[in-house]
Amino acid sequence: MSAVNPFDVPQDSPFGPDNLPYGVFSTGGGARRLGVAYGDHVLDAGAAARATGAAGELAGLLEAPSLNALLAAGRPAWRQARAEVAGWLTEPGHRAAVGPCLVPRDEVALHLPFEVADYVDFYASEHHASNLGRIFRPGSEPLTPNWKHLPIGYHGRAGTVVVSGTPVVRPCGQRKAPDEAVPSYGPSRRLDIEAELGFVVGAPTPLGSRVALQDADRHVFGVCLVNDWSARDLQSWEYVPLGPFLGKSFATSLSPWVVPLDALTHARVEPPARDTELLPYLDDGGVRPPAGLDIALEVRLNGHVVARPPFSAMYWTYAQMLAHMTVNGAALRAGDLFASGTVSGPERDSRGALIELTWNGREPLALPDGTGRSFLEDGDEVTISATFPGPSGTRLSLGEVTAVVQPPAP
Amino acid sequence: MSAVNPFDVPQDSPFGPDNLPYGVFSTGGGARRLGVAYGDHVLDAGAAARATGAAGELAGLLEAPSLNALLAAGRPAWRQARAEVAGWLTEPGHRAAVGPCLVPRDEVALHLPFEVADYVDFYASEHHASNLGRIFRPGSEPLTPNWKHLPIGYHGRAGTVVVSGTPVVRPCGQRKAPDEAVPSYGPSRRLDIEAELGFVVGAPTPLGSRVALQDADRHVFGVCLVNDWSARDLQSWEYVPLGPFLGKSFATSLSPWVVPLDALTHARVEPPARDTELLPYLDDGGVRPPAGLDIALEVRLNGHVVARPPFSAMYWTYAQMLAHMTVNGAALRAGDLFASGTVSGPERDSRGALIELTWNGREPLALPDGTGRSFLEDGDEVTISATFPGPSGTRLSLGEVTAVVQPPAP
Repeated sequence: MSAVNPFDVPQDSPFGPDNLPYGVFSTGGGARRLGVAYGDHVLDAGAAARATGAAGELAGLLEAPSLNALLAAGRPAWRQARAEVAGWLTEPGHRAAVGPCLVPRDEVALHLPFEVADYVDFYASEHHASNLGRIFRPGSEPLTPNWKHLPIGYHGRAGTVVVSGTPVVRPCGQRKAPDEAVPSYGPSRRLDIEAELGFVVGAPTPLGSRVALQDADRHVFGVCLVNDWSARDLQSWEYVPLGPFLGKSFATSLSPWVVPLDALTHARVEPPARDTELLPYLDDGGVRPPAGLDIALEVRLNGHVVARPPFSAMYWTYAQMLAHMTVNGAALRAGDLFASGTVSGPERDSRGALIELTWNGREPLALPDGTGRSFLEDGDEVTISATFPGPSGTRLSLGEVTAVVQPPAP
Repeated sequence: MSAVNPFDVPQDSPFGPDNLPYGVFSTGGGARRLGVAYGDHVLDAGAAARATGAAGELAGLLEAPSLNALLAAGRPAWRQARAEVAGWLTEPGHRAAVGPCLVPRDEVALHLPFEVADYVDFYASEHHASNLGRIFRPGSEPLTPNWKHLPIGYHGRAGTVVVSGTPVVRPCGQRKAPDEAVPSYGPSRRLDIEAELGFVVGAPTPLGSRVALQDADRHVFGVCLVNDWSARDLQSWEYVPLGPFLGKSFATSLSPWVVPLDALTHARVEPPARDTELLPYLDDGGVRPPAGLDIALEVRLNGHVVARPPFSAMYWTYAQMLAHMTVNGAALRAGDLFASGTVSGPERDSRGALIELTWNGREPLALPDGTGRSFLEDGDEVTISATFPGPSGTRLSLGEVTAVVQPPAP
C-alpha cells in the first residue's frame, strides 16, 4: 500500500480520470491481466470487476489476459466498460472494494496490450513524404502522383511488433550504396526511427464489406504510440518494386497503453485543408466530428529532445486510412493495427525520423554530450511520448514507447 | 460406409500412402478436426490417435482443431506423426480400429488448414519478373538491379487468406489509366490470378535469430497451393513507392491440403544455374539436398487449361526465401505462410498470371466457348492444381485451389 491515497488523482494528471488507457500487466512473473492506468497506479480491471460485482459479460471481457476480447465486443461494450471503470475509480462508495485492486505502476511489468492481427503502416504526413521525395528524387515533384488521392499504405510484420522496453537488435542484411557495384552483407549502418501513432481496430468486419468514413469510430478502439524502426540502407536496396520488407520487419515498438478514442474528444481538430479533390469514399468534408487529432509527440534520443512532431499536421486522418484499407472488401479483425507513418510537421525540429532531421545524414544532430548523430548507434535509447488536450485545459498522456539499440548477435 | 475398401489405395493414387497431406475438415456443420487425405477418404487424425492408443503428446497435437499445434511442435514431431499415420493406414492390424475414422472425402467440408500468422509473398520467378519488366518498362532492363541478389518479397494481409472454394468478390478501389488525368472509383477492370506455391512455417524462432539455408527444413512444415488474386489496375496506381496493398489484400486463396516436405523427397531438383554471385547467406551451391522442387502446376479457367507453370524453373528456392526473410532477425511463428510469387516458366503457356498470358491484355486468351479473356469476368472459375513425382515413377497431388469470381456488393 503506497503512502499516498491512490484514488487521489487530480484531473490534470497525465493518467487522470479522463484518460483511463488500457494495458496488460503482470506482477512478480505472474499471469497477464488487463489493467487501466490511473495516476501512479494500475487498476487490475478483472479483479475490480469481480470486487464490484460487475455484470458477467463485462467481467468476462475484463478478466481476459489481453485486450482482444474487449476489442471484438464493439463500441457499446467499450463505452460501458469505460463508464464502469471510471465509476470504480472516482465514486467513493467503491473505494473499499477497488482499493486492493490498485497496484503501484512501478511494481508492474507491462506487456503487449493486444495480440496484433494484421499490421498496416501508412504514409500519411505530407511533410514526411515531401521531405523523402526531396532527399531521394531531387529535381522531381516531391510527392508521387497518387499521394494526394489516397493514403498510401502497406502491410508490415505483425509477429515482430514488440512492447516498449524490448531491446531492438540492429538488423543485418544487404546494403548497397549508389557508388558500390554489388551489395555487401552486414549490420545496418543507417538505423533510424519513425515516430508514429498506431490505431487499434476493435469490431471486426466480414470479407467483402467496407467501412465508410462516418463509421470509422465503430471500429477503431483507440490509439497508441509506435516506433517503426527502419534500416534505411536495407530498405533503399530492397524496396523497388514491392516496397519495404527487411528494412522494417525486424522490430516495431508499441507503447503499453492504448488510449480509447473516447478519451480523445477534446483533441479532435479539422485536418489540413485539402488541395486535391477526393473521391467520395475519402471525402471527409461533411463528416462530423472531424478526425484530425491534436496530439503532440516528442522524440528523445538519450534523454535529449530531438523533435516535437505535431499529429495535427497529418494530411490523412485515421478515418480515411480505415475507409481506404477496407474499400476493396478486406476484412478487419480485432487486433488489427494500423499506424500513421512518420509524423512530421513543417518545421525542421518537428520531423519524426532521423533521415529527415539530419537530411539523409548530411547534417548530423549535435547531442549535449558532444557527440553527433546521423543515424542510431548501438546503446542509443529512443523514447517517443505524446500528450493531448483533455477537458478544461488539462493535458493527458499517451505514455511512451522506448527502446535501446543493441548490437547484432555475432 | 463406401462400397470400396477405403484402405485399398494404390501407391500411384494422387493421395496415396506416400503423400498424406494434412487439412482441417468438418462434417454436418460440426466441429473442425484435423484430417489426412488418403485416396478418396479423409482420416480423422484425432479419432485415429485415440482409436489406436497413440501416445498422449502426439494425440494432443492431432486432436487440435487446426494444424498450428503440430506446426509448432517441430520436425521430430512431424516425422513421428507422419510415421504413425502411415502405419495406421497401411498396417492391416490397425484396420479394425482405424476404419471408422475414415470419412468419404465428398462428405466433408474443408477449412483453412491453419491459422495464418504472417503472410509474405515473394517474387521468385525470373520469367515472371522479366515479363512484367518488359510489359511495364519496355526498353529498360527487365529485372531491377536487386533481383538477382536477393529474393524480393513483401508482407500481405494474413486476415484475408481464405480456403479454396470461398468465392472471391471483385474488389473496388481507385483506378487510373495512364491517359486519365485523375483516378476514378469502381470495381477492378483488370482482375487477375497468380498461381503460386505456399510454404507453411512450423517451428518458430525467437526475435533476433536467423535461419541458415541448411536449417530451412527444420522450420518449413510443408507446401500448399496459393492463388494470389491481383487487381492490376488498383495495384498499378497505388504501388509506388511502398508496394502492393489493396490490389492484393481483398483475398488470397489457399488449397485445403498441406503436403509435408517429407512427401516431396523425390521432387527435389537443382534450381536453375545462378549467373550472379550470391552473398554467403543465400549461396546454396553446397547445400544438400537441393531445395529446388519439380512440381508441375496447372491453371484452369472455366475448366479449360490455360497454363502449365513448372515450379522447377523458379530462380529462388524456399530455403533462400526463408534465409532471407530472417536474416534481419525477424522472428518466425507457427502458421507463418510465405508464397513463391507467380510461377512462370519460359514458354508462353507456362505463365502463371493472365497479365503475362495475355501480355497485359493485348493478346486475349481464346476459350473453347468462343469467348476471349484479357482479365477475369464475373462468374469465372479459376482452379490451380499441381502434381509432383513420388517414389517409383508415381505422381502425387497437391490437390487444388479453386474459386469463382463474384460481382461486388452494390
